[in-house]
Amino acid sequence: MPDMRVRISAESGGPTKTLVKARNFQLIVDEPPELGGNDEGANPVEFVLAGLAGCLNVMGHLVAGEMGISLRGLRIDIMGELNPEKLFGKPTTDRAGYKTIEAVVKPDCDADKATLEKWLEAVESRCPVSDNLANTTPVSIKLK
Amino acid sequence: MPDMRVRISAESGGPTKTLVKARNFQLIVDEPPELGGNDEGANPVEFVLAGLAGCLNVMGHLVAGEMGISLRGLRIDIMGELNPEKLFGKPTTDRAGYKTIEAVVKPDCDADKATLEKWLEAVESRCPVSDNLANTTPVSIKLK
Repeated sequence: MPDMRVRISAESGGPTKTLVKARNFQLIVDEPPELGGNDEGANPVEFVLAGLAGCLNVMGHLVAGEMGISLRGLRIDIMGELNPEKLFGKPTTDRAGYKTIEAVVKPDCDADKATLEKWLEAVESRCPVSDNLANTTPVSIKLK
Repeated sequence: MPDMRVRISAESGGPTKTLVKARNFQLIVDEPPELGGNDEGANPVEFVLAGLAGCLNVMGHLVAGEMGISLRGLRIDIMGELNPEKLFGKPTTDRAGYKTIEAVVKPDCDADKATLEKWLEAVESRCPVSDNLANTTPVSIKLK
């Protein structure tokens, strides 16, 4: 299987609003008023958690199918903690991004706990978004 | 400044479709047909790149304001490379997520190249999403 190349292109729609094109989809990213925006869309760090939730759902169903688990539903709650001082340029020893990310997944199915622990382990280890958050990835940002 | 707690909640809308609630926003994440989905929304790994684009736009404007650079516009193109074998459970030595992420930012402004290199360095180091992708973050995924 060849590597997939995933591309998005974005145009600024103002100081906090970003218009993103991902294939045929237009996504609006903005900030809430308390972070200086006009609240026209979810914000960048919420987009990351939404990507993680989407990935856990896809992987949850894929692995459940392989294990013969019938999933009637899946709820995922995610919380990330972040100190905004660094992004605002204030002196801090904290990092810029989430310090921790916690996801709670609640599958609606008849599998027992031991089976679900195995399921979750496979989901987490094969989930691309979880991998990119938990581990380092070379990110190159260049001027054009 | 206290740490921000960012929360999203998600419900599965089927094997590939995820309905995400981030404050007052409803986001739909899905997969394209070639990845088994119905293409009702951008996919999880596109959401991550959209979050990065949004974050670079916000930070680009914030840092430009601090440096006295007047930004008339900002275009951001991002590409990530990923081998889907691991997510599909095929034998591979590759990781699950993006192996590399490359962003190209094109500011429309009158600043010279040396100034823009300084600008970009500050943007990258203070951007939460860039930090979470480039560096490790504790990600806890638990069963409820």
